Amino acid sequence: MKIVINRDQLMQSIQNVMRAISPKTTIPILSGMKLEANENEMKLTGSDSDITIESIIPKEEDGIVHIHEVIPGKVVVQAKFLPDIIKKLPEDLVEIEADGELNITIRSGKAEFKLNGQDPEEYPQLPILQTENSFHIQTDLLKTLIRQTNFAVSTSETRPILTGVHFKLENNQLELVATDSHRLASRKIAMNENTETLSFKNIVIPGKSLGELNKILDESQDTIQISVSDNQILFRTKHLFFLSRLLDGNYPETSRLIPEQSKTEVQVNSKELMQTIDRASLLAKDNRNNIVKLVTKEQNAIEITSNSPEIGTAEETLNTNSISGEELKISFNAKYMIDALRAIDAEEIKIQFTGAMRPFIIEPMDEEEQILQLITPVRTY
Amino acid sequence: MKIVINRDQLMQSIQNVMRAISPKTTIPILSGMKLEANENEMKLTGSDSDITIESIIPKEEDGIVHIHEVIPGKVVVQAKFLPDIIKKLPEDLVEIEADGELNITIRSGKAEFKLNGQDPEEYPQLPILQTENSFHIQTDLLKTLIRQTNFAVSTSETRPILTGVHFKLENNQLELVATDSHRLASRKIAMNENTETLSFKNIVIPGKSLGELNKILDESQDTIQISVSDNQILFRTKHLFFLSRLLDGNYPETSRLIPEQSKTEVQVNSKELMQTIDRASLLAKDNRNNIVKLVTKEQNAIEITSNSPEIGTAEETLNTNSISGEELKISFNAKYMIDALRAIDAEEIKIQFTGAMRPFIIEPMDEEEQILQLITPVRTY
Repeated sequence: MKIVINRDQLMQSIQNVMRAISPKTTIPILSGMKLEANENEMKLTGSDSDITIESIIPKEEDGIVHIHEVIPGKVVVQAKFLPDIIKKLPEDLVEIEADGELNITIRSGKAEFKLNGQDPEEYPQLPILQTENSFHIQTDLLKTLIRQTNFAVSTSETRPILTGVHFKLENNQLELVATDSHRLASRKIAMNENTETLSFKNIVIPGKSLGELNKILDESQDTIQISVSDNQILFRTKHLFFLSRLLDGNYPETSRLIPEQSKTEVQVNSKELMQTIDRASLLAKDNRNNIVKLVTKEQNAIEITSNSPEIGTAEETLNTNSISGEELKISFNAKYMIDALRAIDAEEIKIQFTGAMRPFIIEPMDEEEQILQLITPVRTY
Repeated sequence: MKIVINRDQLMQSIQNVMRAISPKTTIPILSGMKLEANENEMKLTGSDSDITIESIIPKEEDGIVHIHEVIPGKVVVQAKFLPDIIKKLPEDLVEIEADGELNITIRSGKAEFKLNGQDPEEYPQLPILQTENSFHIQTDLLKTLIRQTNFAVSTSETRPILTGVHFKLENNQLELVATDSHRLASRKIAMNENTETLSFKNIVIPGKSLGELNKILDESQDTIQISVSDNQILFRTKHLFFLSRLLDGNYPETSRLIPEQSKTEVQVNSKELMQTIDRASLLAKDNRNNIVKLVTKEQNAIEITSNSPEIGTAEETLNTNSISGEELKISFNAKYMIDALRAIDAEEIKIQFTGAMRPFIIEPMDEEEQILQLITPVRTY
């Protein structure tokens, strides 16, 4: 194999593919990156067996030549130092050559690196997914959906199924839900294309996979194809394949966690509430659970307080747009509230409480956006 | 005590003073910051007993009012959350009030923090230094001197005296030397003011102190006053006192370490050499000592190589401006060379070698700058 390729293009692809390669892998071949070159394109593959990423660099695109010379072939190269090497090469063009003995030479200007390769035949095959269960959504919308839910997955392996985001497609509606059992994030969208023949209910994608996918995808209005099989999901754009395993097990029924009526409703500016809670929580960070208290006051005001016995107390009054229903004193984790407000990303929001000991929900005032955040309070009163 | 003060000004002072406060202190009062207000100024003090920093905010400066209201007094406030609290306050003005019971209230807009204070009388007094042994240099020049030497201090406590930078003032010349016994950095400057009556030889300032001082000082052409006593050094600008203890013990005589004649001299562009070594050292990072080899070649070229048995080899040829004297093969720590080239910060440099097993020195071609970097090679041939 021999290829002469633009360094910037190669660098971008390597950085994307590196997201699937774990330095801690116990399978030696997976510490490498598979490089394949043919007359039309270069393909780079990385995998940690949970996630597999393939990035394709076409020979030419939009009139720009990326690959200047090629002798087809393939090889697996040690991934550990590859991004650093490519980044620091002195010239814009990079030559990569592999001989029959799996010796790889990378040249640019007067710099030459000789790296030990591995046999590409030993590299695991990317499974071929049936593409019948496929649908498309806009890439930037997918990124928003991930951002609005993925933070709420569990980081504990006590209930592995909760470390993933639940995808449900039914009646032309896609719903994402994540919960760590203390809080829940949910977002629904109506599908643009007709997906009525398509329906799945128990697709749970590891939060880590979605986090890596989100980092790789650009804020683009191009569509991304999503294909689902029994145990894997494939995200596919023009030059990228992102394959993730799915989590085993049944995702819990979460709809019954969401209270159906509320006793107190507060309507408030999201940014002001976020800043007030952020300030109050400064002292709350000294205790383990980052707890702040919210108390409804006269004249549509709420009071946010926190205290740390060793340091002191914080207190701030905030004017809301409206408070209706019963008086309320409630305590909750400030970080959960800030995460929820960030995810909703609306100017004005409403919070519906059902008493001090019941989960409460936060939604944007504008009900067009079908997003809902739920937080379980902490018992302190 | 009560003061109403501009938040930005206060924030800047708090951030500077925080550099002296260690969260790990075993002396409870030193976990606090001392605040003193009088009719003319506010003074903030922090100390970890090695370093003490005082920052002064004048009531008014250059026509800008910093302090809007004051009732004189003093208090010690818990420093831990102070920077975060002040940074996140909602308004531009901050009110700080301490009552007779050492309760401190910080108010801004509707936000109110109540913090537990400590008795200012328990706070250690800043020692008063004799100012006879004083001289002045420009602040930006002092920062350059620190940057050019401080990186070479030892980080090991085996020989504590080597963890500091040696300051020597003699015959109107100031010399700074740092060495960790593997490399040495030295810089001399002629003093602008007449310091002939002043001379000191065994002033060793902890590298950590100089690092913190460098972070606080602005790149300014204002002068800084430096006063030296037996066991302390005081750096003083208009609004800042920075006091550091000196290291005990005699700094070793370093001038005899510097070879007086050379067998091979290489003159080369500094940036090109740095980039070549940086690239070659990528693979060297896999071995513990980050070792690269330099070999002189025909036609004024040098070859830089490194290897990692598991990963591969790197090799690059670099054209120099001139090579004179004996042929040479030598190995050294790439990081030491990069640090030295960065410190010298000259376009063209010369390296003088005295054989593969003797320390070599790096100097700028322009000999006006009295800077010298010395590196001990590693035995590999």
